[in-house]
Amino acid sequence: MTDTNKSDDRVKQFTEFRQRMNQRILDEPNQVVRRFFALDTQTYQPGALDVKTKELCGLVASMVLRCDDCISYHVAQCRDAGVNRAEMFDAFSIGLVVGGSIVIPHLRRAVDFLDQLETGGAATPEAHDHG
Amino acid sequence: MTDTNKSDDRVKQFTEFRQRMNQRILDEPNQVVRRFFALDTQTYQPGALDVKTKELCGLVASMVLRCDDCISYHVAQCRDAGVNRAEMFDAFSIGLVVGGSIVIPHLRRAVDFLDQLETGGAATPEAHDHG
Amino acid sequence: MTDTNKSDDRVKQFTEFRQRMNQRILDEPNQVVRRFFALDTQTYQPGALDVKTKELCGLVASMVLRCDDCISYHVAQCRDAGVNRAEMFDAFSIGLVVGGSIVIPHLRRAVDFLDQLETGGAATPEAHDHG
Amino acid sequence: MTDTNKSDDRVKQFTEFRQRMNQRILDEPNQVVRRFFALDTQTYQPGALDVKTKELCGLVASMVLRCDDCISYHVAQCRDAGVNRAEMFDAFSIGLVVGGSIVIPHLRRAVDFLDQLETGGAATPEAHDHG
Amino acid sequence: MTDTNKSDDRVKQFTEFRQRMNQRILDEPNQVVRRFFALDTQTYQPGALDVKTKELCGLVASMVLRCDDCISYHVAQCRDAGVNRAEMFDAFSIGLVVGGSIVIPHLRRAVDFLDQLETGGAATPEAHDHG
Amino acid sequence: MTDTNKSDDRVKQFTEFRQRMNQRILDEPNQVVRRFFALDTQTYQPGALDVKTKELCGLVASMVLRCDDCISYHVAQCRDAGVNRAEMFDAFSIGLVVGGSIVIPHLRRAVDFLDQLETGGAATPEAHDHG
Repeated sequence: MTDTNKSDDRVKQFTEFRQRMNQRILDEPNQVVRRFFALDTQTYQPGALDVKTKELCGLVASMVLRCDDCISYHVAQCRDAGVNRAEMFDAFSIGLVVGGSIVIPHLRRAVDFLDQLETGGAATPEAHDHG
Repeated sequence: MTDTNKSDDRVKQFTEFRQRMNQRILDEPNQVVRRFFALDTQTYQPGALDVKTKELCGLVASMVLRCDDCISYHVAQCRDAGVNRAEMFDAFSIGLVVGGSIVIPHLRRAVDFLDQLETGGAATPEAHDHG
Repeated sequence: MTDTNKSDDRVKQFTEFRQRMNQRILDEPNQVVRRFFALDTQTYQPGALDVKTKELCGLVASMVLRCDDCISYHVAQCRDAGVNRAEMFDAFSIGLVVGGSIVIPHLRRAVDFLDQLETGGAATPEAHDHG
Repeated sequence: MTDTNKSDDRVKQFTEFRQRMNQRILDEPNQVVRRFFALDTQTYQPGALDVKTKELCGLVASMVLRCDDCISYHVAQCRDAGVNRAEMFDAFSIGLVVGGSIVIPHLRRAVDFLDQLETGGAATPEAHDHG
Repeated sequence: MTDTNKSDDRVKQFTEFRQRMNQRILDEPNQVVRRFFALDTQTYQPGALDVKTKELCGLVASMVLRCDDCISYHVAQCRDAGVNRAEMFDAFSIGLVVGGSIVIPHLRRAVDFLDQLETGGAATPEAHDHG
Repeated sequence: MTDTNKSDDRVKQFTEFRQRMNQRILDEPNQVVRRFFALDTQTYQPGALDVKTKELCGLVASMVLRCDDCISYHVAQCRDAGVNRAEMFDAFSIGLVVGGSIVIPHLRRAVDFLDQLETGGAATPEAHDHG
């Protein structure tokens, strides 16, 4: 098995885990949790700001809070919303300067994920699959 | 090897790592570190608040600070203290609303760990095995 | 003017500011923000866990995230839910040990606020007045 | 003296403090600190993303990291870059949902500052005056 | 009253508040809280590392966690341990680069406090007065 | 394959990933990101403070911000700068007390990494390989 295949496999396993656990969470009769998930989805719908701008904001927020899963999610969403590589790096630069060098390990994984998306090595997670 | 077995294996490896490293840390003649570990254990002893309430507080604190190991530990301790699934999700909902969507990936892993505990796929870590 | 009066004044000013700004925020036609505020209120309603336990969890979460306004709010709500001083300090001790010495300045202000509540120097903020 | 005057005064004092301390910091012969300040300014220059989008990203990052001074700064910069009130609240909603209810006290102060900007009660800080 | 006098006054009020509240906290019969305060003091005693190095580490930790009270405390302790202005700025530069531009407002207040210490405008808090 | 070999392998894979991604990032024509990386390297050069003290500060900052990759990096750099095991644990104790029990899982992994360095199981990452 090649390195690329291993990487594909990890992304696929992660996506399946995310979908399975989101379903487990939404199956639970806890109204606050369910409403939070619905509100989270609503947040990135087009409004006064368009989806591209909102997703860039979500990406930078995820970087400064240093959450790899959230960063991957928003990188994929940004790309679907038409953010190109140079724009993505502009967003990365804001996250890096605001959040400091502690963001660097997450930046490395973000760029790796972006590389995989661009070479077809990672599927975009579905839109309702947030976080 | 089935997926469940792999998962059991990961939990077992993690528990062994935790016990081994705690021992390594306590073997070191650093009094501040040793006293901190003792104080950490003392914190969750019954006091004005009972163990169940204290562990729920520890769980929510771990969620908003987004530490998977700490969340797993407190989920297991809560369960041992008699917290049922609906109560656990009430605690999750507080962690989620206070800490925001950045908590969601940790919530997914928390629910996965709880599921494993409920189906016997994960042993409760020992009480002195904190963090 | 005595120190106590000055302190009363500050608490009163803060409460008025909070109410005025909450109203400004809810007057804005932004549905995500409005729904978040409603969800925040819903989170602390009685459920599988009672109000007292939920407010204690909210207090400890606010301490480890080090937000003075949130701590004051939950200290007042805890007190209304019947949490006594010894129980409050048990919650403080969890916040302190989980969050570390960086929590100490907030602990000082929390105890000052609790002292004011106990001597009548601070009114409990209204329930819908969260955060 | 009216409340509005007091508020003007606070904003003025804060702006003067910021300018004076930035000067003190840049007078110090520490090259890393100086370069960081220059890099911080460069970050928000037009690039692949325009200034408006970058400032919105900076605003949301400041909200989820809960820094009032940074939030005020970026609210003012966003307004100068043409962000209207509805767009500002869209950015606030992302900060609120990603960062959770712990953001609410900062949101109140952000809206208060925005209100002051819109009614002329607060001057926009100069561009080199970051943070 | 001059600006300098006002500033002296604020520092004095803050020191008095800290001492009074530390006493209130230690008067409370909560053993975990008391032991934490003792452990906090012990942490900065000379050990394998000397006091100067330990206080510099405490200062940088306080900067990246963005706690003004803790920063002021460690700036004063560092100065007492013989840290000069150039060394202090080296520590500031580490805090700034690791923690990012979000640290800048705290850096401004740290430099202001250091300036006051150097011109005699602020008394060093007593050593047991941590946090 | 023995456990030690597996561990060596993980460290090697991690080091290779870091080097490869740093190169990918620096290949990108984003000047802010490139300058940030250069500034990060400059921060730990000898100045008013020596390298050993700076690396200890970087280590404690990484602990309280709870970034495993950054902790491993600074543990290795500290060791190269002559920090012995007792001094390393003094730094760990500061990180633990300032940052709280939430730091414990990272402390375990830090001690494991230090053990590997001391027994030859992990190579020191190269100096330009920061974060």
